[in-house]
Amino acid sequence: MERKIEVGVLGATGMVGQHFIKFLASHPWFEVKWVGASDRNTGKKYREATDWRLEGIMPEGVRELTVQECKPGNAPHLVFSAMDAKVATDIERAFAAAGHSVVSNSRNHRMEPDVPLLVPEVNPDHLQALPIQKKNRGWKGQIATNPNCSTVVLTMALGALRRFGIKRVVVTTMQAVSGAGYPGVSSMDINANIVPFIGGEEEKMESETKKIMGSYSHGNGFTPLEAVISAHCNRVPVLDGHTETVSVEFSSKPTEQDLIEAFANFRSAPQERSLPSAPARPVIYMPEANRPQPRRDVERERGMAVFVGRLRQCPVFHHKFLALGHNTIRGAAGAAVLNAELMRSAGMLDV
Amino acid sequence: MERKIEVGVLGATGMVGQHFIKFLASHPWFEVKWVGASDRNTGKKYREATDWRLEGIMPEGVRELTVQECKPGNAPHLVFSAMDAKVATDIERAFAAAGHSVVSNSRNHRMEPDVPLLVPEVNPDHLQALPIQKKNRGWKGQIATNPNCSTVVLTMALGALRRFGIKRVVVTTMQAVSGAGYPGVSSMDINANIVPFIGGEEEKMESETKKIMGSYSHGNGFTPLEAVISAHCNRVPVLDGHTETVSVEFSSKPTEQDLIEAFANFRSAPQERSLPSAPARPVIYMPEANRPQPRRDVERERGMAVFVGRLRQCPVFHHKFLALGHNTIRGAAGAAVLNAELMRSAGMLDV
Amino acid sequence: MERKIEVGVLGATGMVGQHFIKFLASHPWFEVKWVGASDRNTGKKYREATDWRLEGIMPEGVRELTVQECKPGNAPHLVFSAMDAKVATDIERAFAAAGHSVVSNSRNHRMEPDVPLLVPEVNPDHLQALPIQKKNRGWKGQIATNPNCSTVVLTMALGALRRFGIKRVVVTTMQAVSGAGYPGVSSMDINANIVPFIGGEEEKMESETKKIMGSYSHGNGFTPLEAVISAHCNRVPVLDGHTETVSVEFSSKPTEQDLIEAFANFRSAPQERSLPSAPARPVIYMPEANRPQPRRDVERERGMAVFVGRLRQCPVFHHKFLALGHNTIRGAAGAAVLNAELMRSAGMLDV
Amino acid sequence: MERKIEVGVLGATGMVGQHFIKFLASHPWFEVKWVGASDRNTGKKYREATDWRLEGIMPEGVRELTVQECKPGNAPHLVFSAMDAKVATDIERAFAAAGHSVVSNSRNHRMEPDVPLLVPEVNPDHLQALPIQKKNRGWKGQIATNPNCSTVVLTMALGALRRFGIKRVVVTTMQAVSGAGYPGVSSMDINANIVPFIGGEEEKMESETKKIMGSYSHGNGFTPLEAVISAHCNRVPVLDGHTETVSVEFSSKPTEQDLIEAFANFRSAPQERSLPSAPARPVIYMPEANRPQPRRDVERERGMAVFVGRLRQCPVFHHKFLALGHNTIRGAAGAAVLNAELMRSAGMLDV
Repeated sequence: MERKIEVGVLGATGMVGQHFIKFLASHPWFEVKWVGASDRNTGKKYREATDWRLEGIMPEGVRELTVQECKPGNAPHLVFSAMDAKVATDIERAFAAAGHSVVSNSRNHRMEPDVPLLVPEVNPDHLQALPIQKKNRGWKGQIATNPNCSTVVLTMALGALRRFGIKRVVVTTMQAVSGAGYPGVSSMDINANIVPFIGGEEEKMESETKKIMGSYSHGNGFTPLEAVISAHCNRVPVLDGHTETVSVEFSSKPTEQDLIEAFANFRSAPQERSLPSAPARPVIYMPEANRPQPRRDVERERGMAVFVGRLRQCPVFHHKFLALGHNTIRGAAGAAVLNAELMRSAGMLDV
Repeated sequence: MERKIEVGVLGATGMVGQHFIKFLASHPWFEVKWVGASDRNTGKKYREATDWRLEGIMPEGVRELTVQECKPGNAPHLVFSAMDAKVATDIERAFAAAGHSVVSNSRNHRMEPDVPLLVPEVNPDHLQALPIQKKNRGWKGQIATNPNCSTVVLTMALGALRRFGIKRVVVTTMQAVSGAGYPGVSSMDINANIVPFIGGEEEKMESETKKIMGSYSHGNGFTPLEAVISAHCNRVPVLDGHTETVSVEFSSKPTEQDLIEAFANFRSAPQERSLPSAPARPVIYMPEANRPQPRRDVERERGMAVFVGRLRQCPVFHHKFLALGHNTIRGAAGAAVLNAELMRSAGMLDV
Repeated sequence: MERKIEVGVLGATGMVGQHFIKFLASHPWFEVKWVGASDRNTGKKYREATDWRLEGIMPEGVRELTVQECKPGNAPHLVFSAMDAKVATDIERAFAAAGHSVVSNSRNHRMEPDVPLLVPEVNPDHLQALPIQKKNRGWKGQIATNPNCSTVVLTMALGALRRFGIKRVVVTTMQAVSGAGYPGVSSMDINANIVPFIGGEEEKMESETKKIMGSYSHGNGFTPLEAVISAHCNRVPVLDGHTETVSVEFSSKPTEQDLIEAFANFRSAPQERSLPSAPARPVIYMPEANRPQPRRDVERERGMAVFVGRLRQCPVFHHKFLALGHNTIRGAAGAAVLNAELMRSAGMLDV
Repeated sequence: MERKIEVGVLGATGMVGQHFIKFLASHPWFEVKWVGASDRNTGKKYREATDWRLEGIMPEGVRELTVQECKPGNAPHLVFSAMDAKVATDIERAFAAAGHSVVSNSRNHRMEPDVPLLVPEVNPDHLQALPIQKKNRGWKGQIATNPNCSTVVLTMALGALRRFGIKRVVVTTMQAVSGAGYPGVSSMDINANIVPFIGGEEEKMESETKKIMGSYSHGNGFTPLEAVISAHCNRVPVLDGHTETVSVEFSSKPTEQDLIEAFANFRSAPQERSLPSAPARPVIYMPEANRPQPRRDVERERGMAVFVGRLRQCPVFHHKFLALGHNTIRGAAGAAVLNAELMRSAGMLDV
């Protein structure tokens, strides 16, 4: 096997950063050789700087890496950004300007008119925006983003059904606590309780979904999907996995069998190119009456598939169903890594 | 104070029966003097026959009552039915035929064309069906019912908005484990998990809501509301309280302020008649961004109010909001007791 | 009824402060008329300054109080301290020096040689230290403290058994998340998990218990109980209530019946003087095989009793049993209020 | 690779049976080719007869197996028993009499004087009892057992410390809901609660531990360890993993360092013989202040190691610490499989 591509992680000591570290621990293409974090950690070993919060223990390979300042310079070409939104804008731009490919999980650049917001199975063609971005901004590098965790679940499920024409969607989420990071949600708020509000989440689901499922052309840039989407977002006492109830109206009503086949047969660029983090089947339809369930299904397929179930007629719209995805893997670290794999497969990484 | 009205509880040793016993423990009108249960418990003291599962300990007044067979005879006129659906039909009918007023929480008779399905704030006029029921069936007594627990929450909220014309509703529930009784939901299923299916629940919400919010006339019986309702029902790891996200389309779009005032000013027969279990305000709108929450709000107003919050524009319909109610009180035992209070206030109890 | 005694709460906007506000909301003797908090809240209304985190909503009486600086001056004579340990020392001393009676829940002064650490049923005679404290320190006022929440549960149970001579105790706690305040324990740490460590808790249980159960004399001050105590402290996903397994060796082995009677007949100064927050029975022995349980028992007796159960032979020591108490009521706010009641009943408050 | 050994599972459709199926799914030596269950399932496919309750989905290899009656005959020589205790005695004996090696997780034969109760790292020499058992009972086959799940955790930890002489032990368990099977513990009992009683569990821990850690000789049979052990057993809202606080008195007091080295260096027959299910290190000492934790550690080492932490002086005994093990793997299915591996490595399986 050829030598692995060295990569960096911006914000590597935080919770999202730890998810990147964990997800990349045995990656066949990429190897984390550079970790950046805030000033107070600079110069420490990663193992000293990091309070490891994930299940299991810290992967061996990163324990002795020295934490670097989040400045371009000695970082590898490809850097994953797990930066907090409060600081991501400037740092990500600095890296892109300096020639890095920044593959970011932060929300900061997602909705910008020249930044692709990627779900590789749904809109791989949006990668085309990158050369324009470089040119417009005068950057030597580039920024690509993945959506908010709850958006990924919805767009993967709807992406499989795109041919039927998505017109109207009402979605209610039941989101895991890991989506809020660490310490995130206080146990005083969520123990045996629901917190029926997540700041900015509904707006992100509504706008990001339309950008992702819309079109891109060099002339017009991103044209959002013409559809109306209404989201109700809730936090529930679940560790990992966002569960979403979805009612959909299509351009013309398909049969249930049409939809089940569309879910089952959905394949796209990541599958065609056998990207290493791509799930064999991006959407898995479960016929059991009470599935998918977050605790029982979310870790399957290394957390990279979206699970769909309970497809049935909707008295108000055409159909309704349930979707589940792993918020910190498919909805964050794994999403970004798959984006980088897609970029590499398209020859868009200088590595 | 005059002497209390003696009442009986059918199915008194089960979980729903325990909720009746607890709710009635300090009732100003009614006093439990008769408890009926299945054969294997007949003849025992209530305290011997009952594995008390609720918070706190068994109320004093019922501990020494002798458990009776579920047969009419020596039972008081007014009996509350907490019978399991598997056996409720025949027993409730036998009591009604023998002259008892059966106020039932069971689902068995809810949708029958001569049985009122009551939410006292929403359709007190449906009581009118009772004399017809007695006459048609040749009963000396009568059966009145309350809806399924998740339906109560929805109809209380929609009931406050009725004047705007309910046309289309998409609702997702996040239901407490206490709604499934005891042992009910296995901890293996719900610990840090969601079970996205509750058998028959969605159908009940869709059909019961239309009956409750429909009209009644002696000539035509019950005419269901002309509206379309789509429900997604889920079990979540919460102890008490069903939380529901609701998107609604009205006949013509009201303003948010219209709706908030409609919630705040909603009053109906139970309030006008100062029924003892009636909440002062049946629907309480909470302006906080993240309320209501089941653990923090469900016990307020003795569990008899429905809490609404997060009213906002719905991109797909007109408005969306959140509703919460106590499933075992407002959705079960308290609902039935309020029904009995309404019946008494209407002179429809022979007591 | 005579006019209520005006009291203040130091640290009133925090979580412990909220518990004081809630517990005092309908107190027959005391009325909160003064609330102190950190600088950033000074001058605001209490309702503006406080993010109410407890079940239900903020009591009416305090909503419009203006938050004061935590400095003596216009505060009432009696102030309850819910201060964070980081700042409590100087502020509490300043109030005591200025003539206030400071009844504190903070840990800062608990182990000082002239400060009584009170559990009113167990060591009411320790109040005698207060005049010496005033004299030694040259204060016009005084400081009395209550123990750590897990200590209260243990000392109440052992207090009932004192006559048998406590020699050796091994205790394991399973402590509720509310014991850590807000935001306290992250849901990422405790969702479906145990955190088997609480900083300083084991040491506090071991040392505080000995001070409380020891003796006081003017000549010798506090003489700790001669006993050895070993504590294992754990955080579990329970909202309220610390549960403790206890193995005890006595001076001479009593029978189980001796112990059950000692629990049942335990009465002390708070009961004899009918203090308003005193539980009728400070320790309630539950004979059921699987009780007490935090969720089912902790709210009984307004949270002021300690529940004991599962008394049985210990193969290693003499006996073993289970104890449960409400950590934020009996273990914090209620404990301090009962201390103040005891002080008043002893004529030790200038009010 | 040589052909795998065909094995059967008695009680294969139940919860414990499913754990066997899952644990054996990719076993290098054994392959499940025969599944036995109760009459009502006989003749069905395993996938039809089994409501799969574990995380993920049913392994491929067993889906099409036909469920057999639990009678010897066409079953493979080696059968694992996941039978319910109510029926295990006669069925296991019938299989042993007919020549099968029954490796049982049931409690029924554990304490019999000629049945080894094995923890392969702790008492591999107890296997010697098997030939005597065969002879005494006139069986062509044999029965070997593994202990109760909470006992395994304790004996693995104490087993590492055996050389210091175990004299007195006080242990408190916090046990996962999966230990009670399915449906097992009702969510109404354990949601945000503790159930401080598990029927028979304390007695099992106390007696099984002594048998396991005792000696065996052909002349005297099993001689239990001379030690006193006191257990407090509790159910907590954790999915997998029993956590135990342990206070121990030794024959003579070792240093903390002695104990840490004993944990770290503990190796026994399974490691020496490289048994496929043996963890590389049977006991893993974690130096972090707040570890091990069930949710974060229990899945490490494929659930086969026991994790120990928080070693410190015990004021009452010599030392105290925390131990954690996976109750359904190391405490049940994995335990039995490791027993079978041990038996095979000792030439005691006719396969």
